Amino acid sequence: VLDAEAEPPSGASRRWQQVDVPALVGQARGGSPRAVGRLVSLVEDAHPALREVMAALAPHTGRAAVLGLTGAPGVGKSTTTTALVGALRRDGRRVGVLAVDPTSPFSGGALLGDRVRMQEHATDPGVFIRSMATRGHLGGLARATPQAVRVLEAAGCDVVLVETVGVGQSEVEVAALADTTVVLLAPGMGDGIQAAKAGILEVGDVFVVNKADREGADATARDISQMLGLGAPRRPGDWRPPVVKTVAATGAGIDELAQAIARHQDWLRSTGQLEHRRARRAAGEVEALALAALRGRIGDLDGGGRLDELACEVVAGRLDPYAAADRLVADLGG
Amino acid sequence: VLDAEAEPPSGASRRWQQVDVPALVGQARGGSPRAVGRLVSLVEDAHPALREVMAALAPHTGRAAVLGLTGAPGVGKSTTTTALVGALRRDGRRVGVLAVDPTSPFSGGALLGDRVRMQEHATDPGVFIRSMATRGHLGGLARATPQAVRVLEAAGCDVVLVETVGVGQSEVEVAALADTTVVLLAPGMGDGIQAAKAGILEVGDVFVVNKADREGADATARDISQMLGLGAPRRPGDWRPPVVKTVAATGAGIDELAQAIARHQDWLRSTGQLEHRRARRAAGEVEALALAALRGRIGDLDGGGRLDELACEVVAGRLDPYAAADRLVADLGG
Repeated sequence: VLDAEAEPPSGASRRWQQVDVPALVGQARGGSPRAVGRLVSLVEDAHPALREVMAALAPHTGRAAVLGLTGAPGVGKSTTTTALVGALRRDGRRVGVLAVDPTSPFSGGALLGDRVRMQEHATDPGVFIRSMATRGHLGGLARATPQAVRVLEAAGCDVVLVETVGVGQSEVEVAALADTTVVLLAPGMGDGIQAAKAGILEVGDVFVVNKADREGADATARDISQMLGLGAPRRPGDWRPPVVKTVAATGAGIDELAQAIARHQDWLRSTGQLEHRRARRAAGEVEALALAALRGRIGDLDGGGRLDELACEVVAGRLDPYAAADRLVADLGG
Repeated sequence: VLDAEAEPPSGASRRWQQVDVPALVGQARGGSPRAVGRLVSLVEDAHPALREVMAALAPHTGRAAVLGLTGAPGVGKSTTTTALVGALRRDGRRVGVLAVDPTSPFSGGALLGDRVRMQEHATDPGVFIRSMATRGHLGGLARATPQAVRVLEAAGCDVVLVETVGVGQSEVEVAALADTTVVLLAPGMGDGIQAAKAGILEVGDVFVVNKADREGADATARDISQMLGLGAPRRPGDWRPPVVKTVAATGAGIDELAQAIARHQDWLRSTGQLEHRRARRAAGEVEALALAALRGRIGDLDGGGRLDELACEVVAGRLDPYAAADRLVADLGG
């Protein structure tokens, strides 16, 4: 297992180390946890070799199933992840876990007990676990997470599980990244469900009521089913998100969850949705990188002086912001 | 006074009405609250005439002092805004208020009592009050707020006061918009101060401890002063943010606040910082509009087909995302 702690957090101010990208990618493809860890670090740090890394990984990507697992703090995401990894391993799949979640024990935020629980996979060479640094801003994670998924795909993972905390817009982000999005809930969090339902209902492919041995689990499951039923009328062949009850701590219901995920993956493949979702995801990535490159070019225009010049014209009232933007765009094109 | 409720919220799905931009801008410059309201609505809705509006407003902008007022819910932002508007009016200034704050009574979120309080300015033709719709996402507000400031400037406001709720990144946004940023705090919110201090200390030009008749006001003021003192050593001539104690509900301390703001404005002018801040703000606006235009062009490339094509190459592993982004950028330039 590759532990997140094995690689020390690295600041942006450090000197860049020389990297032998072909060698490193070769080692990662051979299953070296150390090489995989270094590649994810390069991704997080936006290392100058990142472009070369992505080019070297490209031919080896696109085969893994990408699962998103999201839910509010306290619903048992890390326990469920651990149990789900166990089920996938029993099925012989190589699994990568990316914890993009400041509250996740895998990202170093929580109890040692939870971390120890994940230790059941600690000696398993078929499991990579990696926390994505939360020191970066969300924009940075939005770039780095799909790139880290590519690293794990190239390292031979059949499944990459991305765990994110379900607050604000992160559900939407994980749904943009994943083939199958699993939304976790727990009984007695009804208010939270109500508040979040608009976002949650739209992104979930599979719903889990975890801690189902607690009071109110049936009511929570019923509420979700009802809310799902209130949505747009489904056409024949549409996916109907199942609601699975689990007690991740004991493993109860985990096989059912794994089966529900497998059914969704089959549905994605048989309907062409898999290709469609992946193309949409790649389009988002490419567009974001293109815009970042264009922003860089704006900074390069005369050392940023052209933008400053146009800004002064705007301040003086001689140009409006749109006309100034037009000129900037024209300069980029020329 | 222009009340936010006078203009019904308008959905994006409505048909665009024809607009006689020169006439509307002329009426707004003549002080018509109705014309000002329509222009702000055009801004919020990103009406097709927006470019023409901005071009027509440009020669009449850049003269108003833009004040940002931010703070956590419950510190008394709306009461302070009301009292500050009174002080500015006694000084003969024309005042515009933009409430970009879902918790503000001006945006329709809160108690009728607070709304009534603002009514003291309701018959004053020298005051425009407008809530910015919170139905749009934050990105939309980031575009629309500076444009709405331009409308109020062109309508002859000497001061435009932008009220935002201080949560998350909005302090940073109001600071990017305003010449002078006023940060409001209240006694007994120590934890909030601690949590937010990093962001708050950097953006505040003037700090206010409102509800200063409550226990702990002196301690809160002392805490802020101390935290401000811990920052980077100041050079001679640097602005030292004052901490003003107010009881906005009774008007106590409001004249001192107005004076502190006026001193900051004098400092901005005498040091060239005013020009510098406004140029930086305009540069941000122009860059954002340029990037939006480029994003539009990406969508236009072959009806978005070029991006889809590149995305398919990425999914197939024949291109990496960076190489695809390079091709997209090259296509835009050609």
